[in-house]
Amino acid sequence: MSKQKQAAPLMETIVSLCKRRGFIFQASEIYGGIGNTYDYGPLGVELKRRVKEAWWSRTVTERADVVGLDSAILQNPKVWEVSGHVGGFTDPMVDCKTCKGRFRADKLEDARCPEKPSKIPGECHGELTEPRSFNLMFKTNVGPVEDSGSIAYLRPETAQGIFLNFLNVQQSARLKPPFGIAQIGKSFRNEITPGNFVFRTREFEQAEMEFFVPPAENDKWYDFWRNERFRWYSDLGIREEKLRLRDHDADELSHYSNATCDVEYEYPFGWGELEGIACRTDFDLKRHSEASGTRLEYFDPQTKEHYMPYVIEPAGGIDRMALTFLIDAYDEEELEKETRTVLHFHPEIAPTTVGVFPLVKKDGMPEKAQEIAKELRRARFSTFYDEKAAIGRRYRRQDEVGTPYCVTIDGDTMAEDVVTVRDRDSMEQERVPVAELRGWLDEAVRNWKRG
Amino acid sequence: MSKQKQAAPLMETIVSLCKRRGFIFQASEIYGGIGNTYDYGPLGVELKRRVKEAWWSRTVTERADVVGLDSAILQNPKVWEVSGHVGGFTDPMVDCKTCKGRFRADKLEDARCPEKPSKIPGECHGELTEPRSFNLMFKTNVGPVEDSGSIAYLRPETAQGIFLNFLNVQQSARLKPPFGIAQIGKSFRNEITPGNFVFRTREFEQAEMEFFVPPAENDKWYDFWRNERFRWYSDLGIREEKLRLRDHDADELSHYSNATCDVEYEYPFGWGELEGIACRTDFDLKRHSEASGTRLEYFDPQTKEHYMPYVIEPAGGIDRMALTFLIDAYDEEELEKETRTVLHFHPEIAPTTVGVFPLVKKDGMPEKAQEIAKELRRARFSTFYDEKAAIGRRYRRQDEVGTPYCVTIDGDTMAEDVVTVRDRDSMEQERVPVAELRGWLDEAVRNWKRG
Repeated sequence: MSKQKQAAPLMETIVSLCKRRGFIFQASEIYGGIGNTYDYGPLGVELKRRVKEAWWSRTVTERADVVGLDSAILQNPKVWEVSGHVGGFTDPMVDCKTCKGRFRADKLEDARCPEKPSKIPGECHGELTEPRSFNLMFKTNVGPVEDSGSIAYLRPETAQGIFLNFLNVQQSARLKPPFGIAQIGKSFRNEITPGNFVFRTREFEQAEMEFFVPPAENDKWYDFWRNERFRWYSDLGIREEKLRLRDHDADELSHYSNATCDVEYEYPFGWGELEGIACRTDFDLKRHSEASGTRLEYFDPQTKEHYMPYVIEPAGGIDRMALTFLIDAYDEEELEKETRTVLHFHPEIAPTTVGVFPLVKKDGMPEKAQEIAKELRRARFSTFYDEKAAIGRRYRRQDEVGTPYCVTIDGDTMAEDVVTVRDRDSMEQERVPVAELRGWLDEAVRNWKRG
Repeated sequence: MSKQKQAAPLMETIVSLCKRRGFIFQASEIYGGIGNTYDYGPLGVELKRRVKEAWWSRTVTERADVVGLDSAILQNPKVWEVSGHVGGFTDPMVDCKTCKGRFRADKLEDARCPEKPSKIPGECHGELTEPRSFNLMFKTNVGPVEDSGSIAYLRPETAQGIFLNFLNVQQSARLKPPFGIAQIGKSFRNEITPGNFVFRTREFEQAEMEFFVPPAENDKWYDFWRNERFRWYSDLGIREEKLRLRDHDADELSHYSNATCDVEYEYPFGWGELEGIACRTDFDLKRHSEASGTRLEYFDPQTKEHYMPYVIEPAGGIDRMALTFLIDAYDEEELEKETRTVLHFHPEIAPTTVGVFPLVKKDGMPEKAQEIAKELRRARFSTFYDEKAAIGRRYRRQDEVGTPYCVTIDGDTMAEDVVTVRDRDSMEQERVPVAELRGWLDEAVRNWKRG
């Protein structure tokens, strides 16, 4: 019935589909691009919006113990000194004395010599310098004077904005651990070797949550969040056989963590990190307390005790999540006479929820279809109206972008106010009275399961 | 019944309320801040989310002729040369030869001499240099080498990302003018004199839409969008007497525009721009076509003609919108025995939609209230549960942050499954069966009108 493309070709197919149908374009394409940077087109922006909304709903809106935050990208540079990013957020780089190119010392096999584009360094016979640390934070200057006193960094993670506001949030929202502070926002890392499409880009959108717990409850909540984050992906339709939880070995752990695991996905290029869940202990609150002189502690009014909570952090990238939903949804199905390309998105993730088609361009059908499309848009269903080409062709175009439901207006609609709703996954059709259409769609979205 | 605070005190009151209740905090506060930069707390982030959602729904989801885009902040630097920002996006600056301070030449009265903080320049008796242009774009370097070849700018507007993708979007989404491309995202301007809280900040979130039209339809669509954008604010509860449309005089127009108007709001500090609607003609598409060699034109398959559309651009700032909703919603009402502080937010804009309170902390009421709160959260109502303090005090706390509905669980709830819903604006109470609560709230949100 159905097959998956092989590794490399699948990525190429996805990249090509993304450009052709308006999910993802190369940024500044008309000027030759800029590194591995991308713009999200009409379907891509809706995909990302839904991924963010699904994350926020599950992590914040539906929970009683998590609140949101939106901190600035530009913070006082002291923040990044204290967090350890100014000193330690670096890659080792070497310069080639002959071609003057600069390469990552630990990834020389990936480097390309700028003088001889097809050769790796060494092949231009240049001598390499000793490795030097290269900081991955983007630097800029704030205010009218460009000197060391005006340096600011584009944040390399959203997490620090949460730690800085620990007391502001805890006190204004009157929270008691265990509680979480969640944030979605852009971060920037001047990666030397970004790649694999939007898997790793210099500019990316993070979804991070710091869950503050009494230290004794650390292990319980770490277990909870590793399972909860795995479940979120499978609830949204990612196939469980493509997902795994992998615990970090001791030598993989960051300096601030005593336990970390990754939710991994089996990408066409191999298993890769989709999201990390880290125990950050009280490392960050302690560092910022010492450096700022503000005690970032919780005061328990019942026990009259001050203590510094431990932190469990689930942290993922929205761009990588969107790519994963795309890859996992992609399928080519062999039908009797053709191959059908289809994205089996969960309806909550699908950029377009419903296609509306008049069967033919006459007999008042386009007008009726427009009217139904308008009603659906008013009810805030993401709706696409199409009257071009044969009906089968229109179905295929929506299959290819993952639209779960298509509504066709035909003779019966004109006579009896009944439409045909066609299901993307089963390709089955059902007659639904126009008056019941919104309710039918609501229920279908809610009850969807991946076949 | 009701009074509005005077100008300056009102801004101070709003800033203080924002910090105390968790709308907006000073960024990097524990390190002394960083210029005029702010973080949005739990209520602020929900307010902004709703403002963005209301804008996107009305501008994109509910329309058949507008699609979305999400372009990168870092683009090829050529973009900003061609757009005119590298050459022309500047403020005139002077240096004081004595105190070495740098000041805006056109705003010397606002400047403060760094050597003598309370004095304006001249008072330190220093001689000023001739004015020089200072570019408002933040600069950074991309990749491992910091030289002129690696310079990139943080985008000063989201609009250019839309122009760059004109063909990508038009072709992938098969659009025919008139159509629009909308975008919400961060922009950055290295303002010398940011101020008035989040009214003008260096880092801000824009909501821009470029509406591409056949040149002959320019005036019709300009009229449409100026009215539509005014109406959006009044539909969301902003008082019309505080809003006005003001056409720019010829000498105010930007170099790319032949007509522009502002939606203005009467802030505590005077009338100010809330949003601009500009006719940008074909200025941007033409410039980018010439510079890139890619013809950014529409090809009409019926007439076989190529033409360059004109552009109508409604462009506002999400932070400024959020501030405006806050200011406009704020009221202090004199009741019989007290003054009530209340935010009369439209329920679609209110950070919390519903408060849930057990009348007393016994007789199973907290458990029942928690259960109802959980149901509401699952249905994705922004829900706040509170069992602390007297019921009147809990109402006041929700009034102050603009929660439109509070649900109280009392003896009748336990006996007859009926709750009391209290309306923020009228303070009237109504008995509602638990089974009908979700529907009741949906309808109340939909039918709300400002009193």
